[in-house]
Amino acid sequence: MAEEKLPTRSENYSEWYNQLIQRAEMADYAPVRGCMVVRPYGWALWENMQQNLDKRFKETGHVNAAFPLLIPKSFLEKEKEHVEGFAPELAIVTIGGGQELEEPLVIRPTSETVIGYMYSKWIKSYRDLPVLINQWANVVRWEMRTRLFLRTLEFYWQEGHTAHATQKEAEEETLRMLDVYADFAEKEAAVPVIRGRKSATERFAGAKETYSIEAMMGDTRALQAGTSHFLGQNFAKAFDIQYLDLNNQLQHVWTTSWGLSTRFVGAIIMAHGDDQGLVLPPRLAPYQVVLIPIYKNDEERSKVMPVVEKLKAELSGFRLKVDDRSEVTPGFKFNDWELRGVPLRIEVGPKDVEKGTFAMARRDIPGRDGKSFVPQVNAARTVGDMLDQIQTGIFQKAVDFRKAHVFDPKSYDELKEVLQGGWAYSWWCGDAACEAKVKEDTKATTRNIPLDQEGGSGKCIVCGKPASEKVYFARAY
Amino acid sequence: MAEEKLPTRSENYSEWYNQLIQRAEMADYAPVRGCMVVRPYGWALWENMQQNLDKRFKETGHVNAAFPLLIPKSFLEKEKEHVEGFAPELAIVTIGGGQELEEPLVIRPTSETVIGYMYSKWIKSYRDLPVLINQWANVVRWEMRTRLFLRTLEFYWQEGHTAHATQKEAEEETLRMLDVYADFAEKEAAVPVIRGRKSATERFAGAKETYSIEAMMGDTRALQAGTSHFLGQNFAKAFDIQYLDLNNQLQHVWTTSWGLSTRFVGAIIMAHGDDQGLVLPPRLAPYQVVLIPIYKNDEERSKVMPVVEKLKAELSGFRLKVDDRSEVTPGFKFNDWELRGVPLRIEVGPKDVEKGTFAMARRDIPGRDGKSFVPQVNAARTVGDMLDQIQTGIFQKAVDFRKAHVFDPKSYDELKEVLQGGWAYSWWCGDAACEAKVKEDTKATTRNIPLDQEGGSGKCIVCGKPASEKVYFARAY
Repeated sequence: MAEEKLPTRSENYSEWYNQLIQRAEMADYAPVRGCMVVRPYGWALWENMQQNLDKRFKETGHVNAAFPLLIPKSFLEKEKEHVEGFAPELAIVTIGGGQELEEPLVIRPTSETVIGYMYSKWIKSYRDLPVLINQWANVVRWEMRTRLFLRTLEFYWQEGHTAHATQKEAEEETLRMLDVYADFAEKEAAVPVIRGRKSATERFAGAKETYSIEAMMGDTRALQAGTSHFLGQNFAKAFDIQYLDLNNQLQHVWTTSWGLSTRFVGAIIMAHGDDQGLVLPPRLAPYQVVLIPIYKNDEERSKVMPVVEKLKAELSGFRLKVDDRSEVTPGFKFNDWELRGVPLRIEVGPKDVEKGTFAMARRDIPGRDGKSFVPQVNAARTVGDMLDQIQTGIFQKAVDFRKAHVFDPKSYDELKEVLQGGWAYSWWCGDAACEAKVKEDTKATTRNIPLDQEGGSGKCIVCGKPASEKVYFARAY
Repeated sequence: MAEEKLPTRSENYSEWYNQLIQRAEMADYAPVRGCMVVRPYGWALWENMQQNLDKRFKETGHVNAAFPLLIPKSFLEKEKEHVEGFAPELAIVTIGGGQELEEPLVIRPTSETVIGYMYSKWIKSYRDLPVLINQWANVVRWEMRTRLFLRTLEFYWQEGHTAHATQKEAEEETLRMLDVYADFAEKEAAVPVIRGRKSATERFAGAKETYSIEAMMGDTRALQAGTSHFLGQNFAKAFDIQYLDLNNQLQHVWTTSWGLSTRFVGAIIMAHGDDQGLVLPPRLAPYQVVLIPIYKNDEERSKVMPVVEKLKAELSGFRLKVDDRSEVTPGFKFNDWELRGVPLRIEVGPKDVEKGTFAMARRDIPGRDGKSFVPQVNAARTVGDMLDQIQTGIFQKAVDFRKAHVFDPKSYDELKEVLQGGWAYSWWCGDAACEAKVKEDTKATTRNIPLDQEGGSGKCIVCGKPASEKVYFARAY
């Protein structure tokens, strides 16, 4: 761990990201190209995210289930747009038990098809609706250019799949889950997001509408952090999911799907990380507090450790790590836990013992400004308040950063310019040709058409034709 | 759901099992042969099992991580016995992203190889040991004869993989995790198990020793409900996992692995289920209590519902389902929840409202004997005590059942006879030929050589040669 320093973000953002993940032991490269191993520290973060999201899904009436990994290849072909979108990315099993398979199986890239097939078996009457199921699963998409967490051949996610009696209910569900994602992102991960509708070009293959939450990373690039799809009756028709309505008439159901993946771990890393390493949000961090005893000899140690033990007991309501390694120095430990982004560091030295205090160092405010000395009494309350402040602080910092890097260009030339170092929020006529021109000229894509916008109308930033909605353009991960 | 009656266990145990799982909506058949869909009710049971086991793993110092689904085929070939065991069962990916792969990838049937590869990267010094990692994952084994939960192409499990500096530590870990499984099985699932060592024939491919917990099902067949393997240095040598010891010498680590899968759901179904359906252990049941309001008209309903709401609030510490469906009769609901194995049913009717009582019906004791009328005051305590009694009751019933069906045959002929309707606990010389003869003659295999046995010596039940250990023979799932 005493390697050379982490590259700074301004030196090389991409190297900063890759090295940070490995040095902080969040993830590592698997032997198969593009696959990752999520190491215990990274998985602990994901588990906290899972628990938090799962609670929100259950509160909104959803239950979990598990659908199979392997899907007959022919299933994907039943929905025309779906197969066009996913066919190039499939991993295909052709041999099982030593025999060539009669029909090749694909490893699920997403589960609309196999879940559609099961729903057609389960759903008979309006009494069976709505069906509100989620699954936590691994999926495989054969991506060419991969990055740890952001884009890996295999990734982990949850995918919700719901079926409803009416279009209205399905549309409401789509937006409800978008809001669940947005709330999770902002309250738990402290990552501010824009909720909006994707353009037709950027839609999920087979969806009528796709909604996303979009976050700004530390290099100003955008990251799509979660999506919610209104699938209309596309999959209901492809898989013949029908129910008898109150009038005893057969009707196709209306479906939705929505997903959030380990990619979001990348969002947390890039939204908050600094040149010293990770900065993890207290509400999700594997360790919220690291407690480091400071002593030079056995005598000091014997004074310090009882206070450490007392604090450990008092802070048992927090995810606390006591780092009492004897083979490394306190300075080494400070750097190590800074790299790993633990929100709050507590130090207890001989002077603290005498004074009845301890030192607290905020990860989000490096140096003196983030350090304070507080009484040992009421430690749990002091620490709890500080963690809340950190949570709020990093959220606000991300909001401010985004605000400073979203622009309202006045001309197409200005659009091209601002997209080099930020997002543009501009009128757009909705024409895919304008979208394509921007992509061609700047590599930026439309991120989404935000749900919350001022209304009115203007002129498309690209072609000058009348436009009734504004869109975010940005280069994206 | 108003279909014909479930077959009884004595009529057709296998059909009873298959139909019960589908009717209780625990699982369903997936479109791919041998794969299953675990439905929300079944998955809720598995989630409770997961949480419970995960807590035990963390208490014994383990952390979770996630290793990849896809493994280079060549990895499996690095450990000779391992590949021999698993090669016939592999699902192989030969195409990715539209291209034939240079090296085929296998879908993990178990993860010793890829985890061994990663451990060789991560482990450098004795300070890095022990490594105590678990993962919750799906695996695929191309089985020919499949049964829901018991043997499916894809199944869900946890697999622990640990690396240690010494043989002794690894052996201790192997037995520690066996004990964790046994404790979980008996305390949480109420399934009594025999902890023991597998014969060489029945060992995990690549292990030095395999230990198992074995449970007796309702038809007296045995089910291996969890295994813990001491892998010696086999995988350490195959994957070159070495560490520098205190004397700065390179040493191979010693490894273990241990797993428990969704097969255990099958064990719960078959250990406790009766002709009316599932009987789920209170500590794991998705719903511990179902509360059914009883009324004939709106007037009665308006009397009953306030008491139902009051009880619901008082019983909020339990996993409680209020079944207030209006389209079906109470009798229908009783059968439905009996089928689904909810441990305790509460009924509240107009007479109960007058008397300040409610009715409790134990799932494990059908009919009048299991029914009692109790005061509404102290409902939480009454219900809690009753759930404890049910938990203990079904465990004891399973213990008694096993006791009644384990035999100590005096001759080989008697062995063959008793194995038609139970287990034999007999001296065995340890020779694989004797084991093979029993299998040939009776279809029974050695289950395990129990850790807890009386000692002494005897004569092998098969060949009559001296034997120093006793073994369980049984037909098994």
